[in-house]
Amino acid sequence: MSSATVPAGERAAAAATAGSSGGLPKPSPLYAAAGLDVWTMMNQAAASVGAVNLGQGYMSFPPKDFITRAAQEALAENSHNQYAPPRGRPGLLEQVGARFSRLLGRDIDPGSELSVHAGANEALLSAFTAFLEHGKGEEVILIEPAFDQYTPNVIMAGGRPVYVPLRVRTTKDPAREVVSSSDWKLDPAELEAAVSSKTRILVLNTPHNPVGKVFTREELEEIGAVAQRHNLLVIADEVYEHLTYGIEHVSIATLPGMWERTITVGSAGKLFGVTGWRVGWAVGPASLIAPTLSAHTRIVFTTNTPLQEGIASALCLAHDNDFFNVQRSEYERRRNRLMAALDDAGLPYVVPDGAYYLLANAASIKIPKDYEFPSYIEARGYNFKLAYFFIKEFGVSGIPPTEFYSDAHKALAVDYIRFAFCKTDEVLEEAARRLQKLKTHLQCSD
Amino acid sequence: MSSATVPAGERAAAAATAGSSGGLPKPSPLYAAAGLDVWTMMNQAAASVGAVNLGQGYMSFPPKDFITRAAQEALAENSHNQYAPPRGRPGLLEQVGARFSRLLGRDIDPGSELSVHAGANEALLSAFTAFLEHGKGEEVILIEPAFDQYTPNVIMAGGRPVYVPLRVRTTKDPAREVVSSSDWKLDPAELEAAVSSKTRILVLNTPHNPVGKVFTREELEEIGAVAQRHNLLVIADEVYEHLTYGIEHVSIATLPGMWERTITVGSAGKLFGVTGWRVGWAVGPASLIAPTLSAHTRIVFTTNTPLQEGIASALCLAHDNDFFNVQRSEYERRRNRLMAALDDAGLPYVVPDGAYYLLANAASIKIPKDYEFPSYIEARGYNFKLAYFFIKEFGVSGIPPTEFYSDAHKALAVDYIRFAFCKTDEVLEEAARRLQKLKTHLQCSD
Repeated sequence: MSSATVPAGERAAAAATAGSSGGLPKPSPLYAAAGLDVWTMMNQAAASVGAVNLGQGYMSFPPKDFITRAAQEALAENSHNQYAPPRGRPGLLEQVGARFSRLLGRDIDPGSELSVHAGANEALLSAFTAFLEHGKGEEVILIEPAFDQYTPNVIMAGGRPVYVPLRVRTTKDPAREVVSSSDWKLDPAELEAAVSSKTRILVLNTPHNPVGKVFTREELEEIGAVAQRHNLLVIADEVYEHLTYGIEHVSIATLPGMWERTITVGSAGKLFGVTGWRVGWAVGPASLIAPTLSAHTRIVFTTNTPLQEGIASALCLAHDNDFFNVQRSEYERRRNRLMAALDDAGLPYVVPDGAYYLLANAASIKIPKDYEFPSYIEARGYNFKLAYFFIKEFGVSGIPPTEFYSDAHKALAVDYIRFAFCKTDEVLEEAARRLQKLKTHLQCSD
Repeated sequence: MSSATVPAGERAAAAATAGSSGGLPKPSPLYAAAGLDVWTMMNQAAASVGAVNLGQGYMSFPPKDFITRAAQEALAENSHNQYAPPRGRPGLLEQVGARFSRLLGRDIDPGSELSVHAGANEALLSAFTAFLEHGKGEEVILIEPAFDQYTPNVIMAGGRPVYVPLRVRTTKDPAREVVSSSDWKLDPAELEAAVSSKTRILVLNTPHNPVGKVFTREELEEIGAVAQRHNLLVIADEVYEHLTYGIEHVSIATLPGMWERTITVGSAGKLFGVTGWRVGWAVGPASLIAPTLSAHTRIVFTTNTPLQEGIASALCLAHDNDFFNVQRSEYERRRNRLMAALDDAGLPYVVPDGAYYLLANAASIKIPKDYEFPSYIEARGYNFKLAYFFIKEFGVSGIPPTEFYSDAHKALAVDYIRFAFCKTDEVLEEAARRLQKLKTHLQCSD
């Protein structure tokens, strides 16, 4: 029997009576299940059969030399090895402030309108923690597919997620034809219908993981209008703002009336291809950043110092060497290579306009009825089976995007697999070669 | 009016009626106060007058070369710049496992009995989060003085802190005589009286910050007996386990019946003098670590990779160069220098047997009645005034230890100042020189 089902009073009394054999501490039901997160699970499955790993969005290529060198140099100075101020190292705040001043078209005050976090993930958790209360039934609107950390982070902070899915609006058949990520639409009426008297926060992710959708100004205006009508805080996860392909990224915080109610989250790991550095940030008006920083100070106290200093130097140098434009064209080339491989293999997909993921539509893949799956896959439904089938049969791993959906909407994603293209040319060529096997499979099952 | 006082339904309805002028998102009351944490406040006060900073416990000396070089070398390999598994990098888990296998006298399985965290602070928060539930009134016993993050972390996880103070038990007068940190005693009867049917967790810090007390085996047995009688989880914050002076550190997890109910927390920042690296860990039975890891995965997802790899190498090298013994003797020398300076100045203190803090007793210091304090100090009570007076009059900064006490017990610490001695010889000599002014002050106020 779990401790959660026994009143605390009875439990302790029982324990006291029984002495040291009275039992052991029991975890909260929220964290009792020791299930693998989807990333670890698919990484392990991929590794077990030597699959080309297009699953987790880490870079299989090294960061540019100037980035790692900046961190190596930072380590040589003692103050860069000791506690940073909770808000962040002054040099990094200055550089991030300058970058956002340009991106948002307003003077950002690094001392009050910015906070540095232990990754964008911790920035999001800090914002949820700062603006939600437990026991009040406060609601947070998540647009699906929604990055898999949003839901547990909202719940940890005391909120209740409410889901509104993007819907594919096109005359094409996505199971047979390539469609655009801009065909995945948020219906403003459906969004507004999801708002209740308890809604406090709306989370927006643009450029979008895993769809690759870059929300247009018009779409953001519609979302902003809902936020303003209902006095919502908007948490804008814009960690891929630097990676769009032939389309402009617009920050919702730049729209009239939106700065005041928006916390925009960014990531050094995404910006410089160093996902393991765990440095992110939040920008917004002082009234929103102060509580976010207060929560951050209690969650991790402060972010690691040497890599903050490394990022500060790298941001400074990135201007001189045109790094962001070079990086963007490199990612566009990788995206195009993966799309060409899928074109060649005959598998349709959603063209990403931003970020480094691509949703392939595998509705035409036929999994034999008697195909055997390990129990940890069997338990997770058809989409996980599909991802596993890709790993075993084609030697290429992706992520099952149903993990980014609530139960009610998983059916929308069940035929898709998310591939990450932040990989070397060699990895993408090998994936392309292996995906050729799809041709045979698709012909045989016709 | 704060949003916390308005029912959510009325608030949203009012906002909807008023349109975009309906107000802005309001933070949770827990994080609304943008007050400075004690560290930032005292660092800023010290810097403003050029005080010798013995406040925050960061090292004013550089880490040994082999430590920073290990991290610099880690940065050169791409996989060391990308996401680590949430549990931690395999190399670090192996090294930490080997260390704890020796310390705890049992074979630690790095794959199930360990988790790596974004600092010991985040390890503690993960454990609280994993084992407490919101809305159930579950209680956590904190022994005072209690590190200032414990209370907000317990509350963030849904718990209610219950405080039991250490009490000075000696025939000496601590206001006039040097006493031992072993004179600060936990009364087992007082501890047991604090346990209720809702108590779930007991937090133990040994070696203790700020007292410098190293709990004896007998004291730990008494505490362990209470934990076993009432089926409590013990969270043992042992981040200073490597720094004891002529006395043995005992891990409570090594006592009979205690491994099963203890999560022991350690810190790479403390172990290697790199407080800004933000790498810590938790060790315990798989049944306790699995939920802690689950919470950790949702709090920060994973810990920064390059510094994990740096610590893994440093742990390996530390054996060859006898690092921990050398470091211990260096800290003992620093402690002795600070004690000699206070002896010379005529200020009594508590002799620390471990860690790198010292409580000076300033009961004999007379602050002039009309002495002016800035408003942020005035608001925080006598102990903050005393620390500020030290900064301004003697040019040496410390931390007011009332920050480590609940309101009910602050009186126990009101005459003390915590000095950190993890500082260079030059800093300690300059502090000693400045503390000479105390002689004049103490004579004049006699």
